[in-house]
Amino acid sequence: MERDYVKEILEGSDAAVARLITWLEDEDQRAGPLMERLHPHTGGARIIGITGAHGVGKSTLTDRLTHKIRQKGLTVGIVAIDPSSPFSGGALLGDRIRMSQHNVDPGVYIRSMATRGCLGGTANATADVVKILDASGKDVIIIETVGVGQDELDIMDIADTVCLVLAPGLGDAIQTMKAGILEIADIYVLNKADRQGTDQLHAEICVRIEQDRNIRRNDWTACVVKTAAVDDTGIDDLWKAIIHHGDFLENTGRIVERRRDRIQRSLLRMIHNELFRLIRRKLEENGQLDACVTDILHHVQEPYGMVRDILNRWIPADSRQSLNE
Amino acid sequence: MERDYVKEILEGSDAAVARLITWLEDEDQRAGPLMERLHPHTGGARIIGITGAHGVGKSTLTDRLTHKIRQKGLTVGIVAIDPSSPFSGGALLGDRIRMSQHNVDPGVYIRSMATRGCLGGTANATADVVKILDASGKDVIIIETVGVGQDELDIMDIADTVCLVLAPGLGDAIQTMKAGILEIADIYVLNKADRQGTDQLHAEICVRIEQDRNIRRNDWTACVVKTAAVDDTGIDDLWKAIIHHGDFLENTGRIVERRRDRIQRSLLRMIHNELFRLIRRKLEENGQLDACVTDILHHVQEPYGMVRDILNRWIPADSRQSLNE
Repeated sequence: MERDYVKEILEGSDAAVARLITWLEDEDQRAGPLMERLHPHTGGARIIGITGAHGVGKSTLTDRLTHKIRQKGLTVGIVAIDPSSPFSGGALLGDRIRMSQHNVDPGVYIRSMATRGCLGGTANATADVVKILDASGKDVIIIETVGVGQDELDIMDIADTVCLVLAPGLGDAIQTMKAGILEIADIYVLNKADRQGTDQLHAEICVRIEQDRNIRRNDWTACVVKTAAVDDTGIDDLWKAIIHHGDFLENTGRIVERRRDRIQRSLLRMIHNELFRLIRRKLEENGQLDACVTDILHHVQEPYGMVRDILNRWIPADSRQSLNE
Repeated sequence: MERDYVKEILEGSDAAVARLITWLEDEDQRAGPLMERLHPHTGGARIIGITGAHGVGKSTLTDRLTHKIRQKGLTVGIVAIDPSSPFSGGALLGDRIRMSQHNVDPGVYIRSMATRGCLGGTANATADVVKILDASGKDVIIIETVGVGQDELDIMDIADTVCLVLAPGLGDAIQTMKAGILEIADIYVLNKADRQGTDQLHAEICVRIEQDRNIRRNDWTACVVKTAAVDDTGIDDLWKAIIHHGDFLENTGRIVERRRDRIQRSLLRMIHNELFRLIRRKLEENGQLDACVTDILHHVQEPYGMVRDILNRWIPADSRQSLNE
C-alpha cells in the first residue's frame, strides 16, 4: 500500500518531513500534490527569523534559544540557510554540528539548506520548508540565515518576528550592513555583550532605531536585547521580547497584514518562477536561446525587441497590450 | 524639432547620456526604443568590475585608476552602485564627492546608481547604463560595487575583468566573503598594502588562488596586485594586470565566450523581469490578486493549485503539457 506522507507529516513524522523536503529540493513532481494537501494545516506556528553577519554567533544563539523554547514545553523547527558558492554549490554544515544535542530531542527538527543562485528561489524553498514544519506541528519555527543581500531580505519576509544579531568588535557593523536589513529588524540582538565595545554598539543601535521610527513598515518600535549566548545570558530576555512582539502583532491585527503580504509575495514568486521555468525550457529546447544570443552578439537583432517578441508569443493576447503601453 | 538622443549619445553628449539613464531609472517608456537603436553601437568598450567589502578603499582605487587610464589617453565611464535601502531608497553619494576632480574632465563620466529591491533589477539596470556609456564612446567602463551578495555577483558578470579588492586589518576577509565572489575574481587587489597584516593576507589569497585553480570558469589563473591607492602606489601594476587579462581574453577567444554568456544571462534576466511586471500588472488589474490572497489566507484555496489554474488560463494549450511533465 502506498504511504500517506501527508498523514505521516501531520502526525509529526520526521522521516516523512525529510522525504518531502528532499523531493522539493530535487523538484520531484511528487512534492506539489503533497504541498497542496498540507496547506490547510498551516498557519499555526510562530515563525522567527534570525539573521546577521558572519561571526556574530547566530548558531549558538539559535541553539540556546531552542533550548529555552523547549523548556517552555514548545516544539521547534529550525531552517538554517547556509551560504554557498554558485560554482562549488555545497552548504557549510560545520555550524550545525554544534547543535547536535538537539538531534536526539524529538521535539526539535533541524534542516540545513544551501542557497542557490536562482532568482528568488531560496525564499520560496524556505517558505515551503517552513510550511511543512508548520503542518508537522512545530510550535515555533526558527529561520536562521546570514544576512547580507536581497536573498536574505526575501527570506526574512517569511518570519513573523525578525531578530537581527550584531556583535561588538566586528568593525563598523551598523555602517556596513545593507540598510534594508536594519529596517526589517523587529528585535536587535546585541550578542557577545560581555565584550569590549558593547556600550558603543548599543548606543549606535539606539540612534538607528530612533532614525527608523518614521520609516518603519508598522508602528512597532524595534527593541534591543543584550545576550551572551555562550554563557546562556539574556536568552530569557530575548524569548520575552519575541513573545512581546508576537502579542503586539496579534493585538493590533498586524499579524494578518503580515501574512497577507507574505502570501501575496509568495504567490507572485510562484507564478513568476513557474512561468519563467517554462519559457526558459522552451527557449533551450531547440537551440532557440543559442540562436537568440548569436543574433544579439552579431547585432542582427537587439535584445529589447527580442524580449518583447518572446513574451508576446507567450502571454495571451488580452494582456499583450500592456507590454506596448 | 524633436531631439535625436541616439545621435547625441553617439557623439558623446553627457547630457543626452544622463537623460537616457534617468528615463531608464524612471521606467519611462521613451527609454526602450532608444536602447534598441543604441544596441548596434555597443561592444567597443573594455568593462572592468571593481568590488569588495566596505572600507577596503574601492572609491580611492577607482579614482586613481581612472587618473591612470586618462593619462594613457583613454576615456572612462564609471558606474558606481551604492547600497541603499528598499524603504528609504536613496543612494549614498558621499564617496563620489572624492572623485570631484574628474567632474571637470570631459573624458570621464561618473554615474551613481542605487540598488533596488527588485529581482535581478540592479544587474540589468547596470548593464543598460554600461551599454549607454559604451555607445557614447567611452574606452573603458568601470563598474564599482560593494561585493557581498547575489546582486553583486550578477553585476560583476557584466565585466570583462573582475578586480576583487581586499585590505588588511578588516577581520577575516577571505573567510567571511561569500564564496562566489572570490571565485569570480580575475585580479585580487590587495589595497592598503602599506599596513600591518599585508603579508598574511597575501599568503591567504595565494592559498585561495591555488584552491580555485580547478574550479575556475576558464583557464585564467587569478593574480594578486598590491596597491596603496592613497599614495598612488601599485596603480600602474594594476592597469598592467588588467591589460594582461584583456589580452588573455582576446588571444584565447574567451572574450567571445564571456560575451555570449553575458548576453544569455542578460536576455534571461530581461525576460524574467519583464515577465514579473506583466504578471503583477495582470493580476492586480481587477483586484484578482487581492481575492487570491484572501482565498489562500482563509484556506478556501491553496496556492499550488491556484498557481496551476492561473498558468493554465494564461499559457497556450500546446505548451501547457510541459507544465505537467
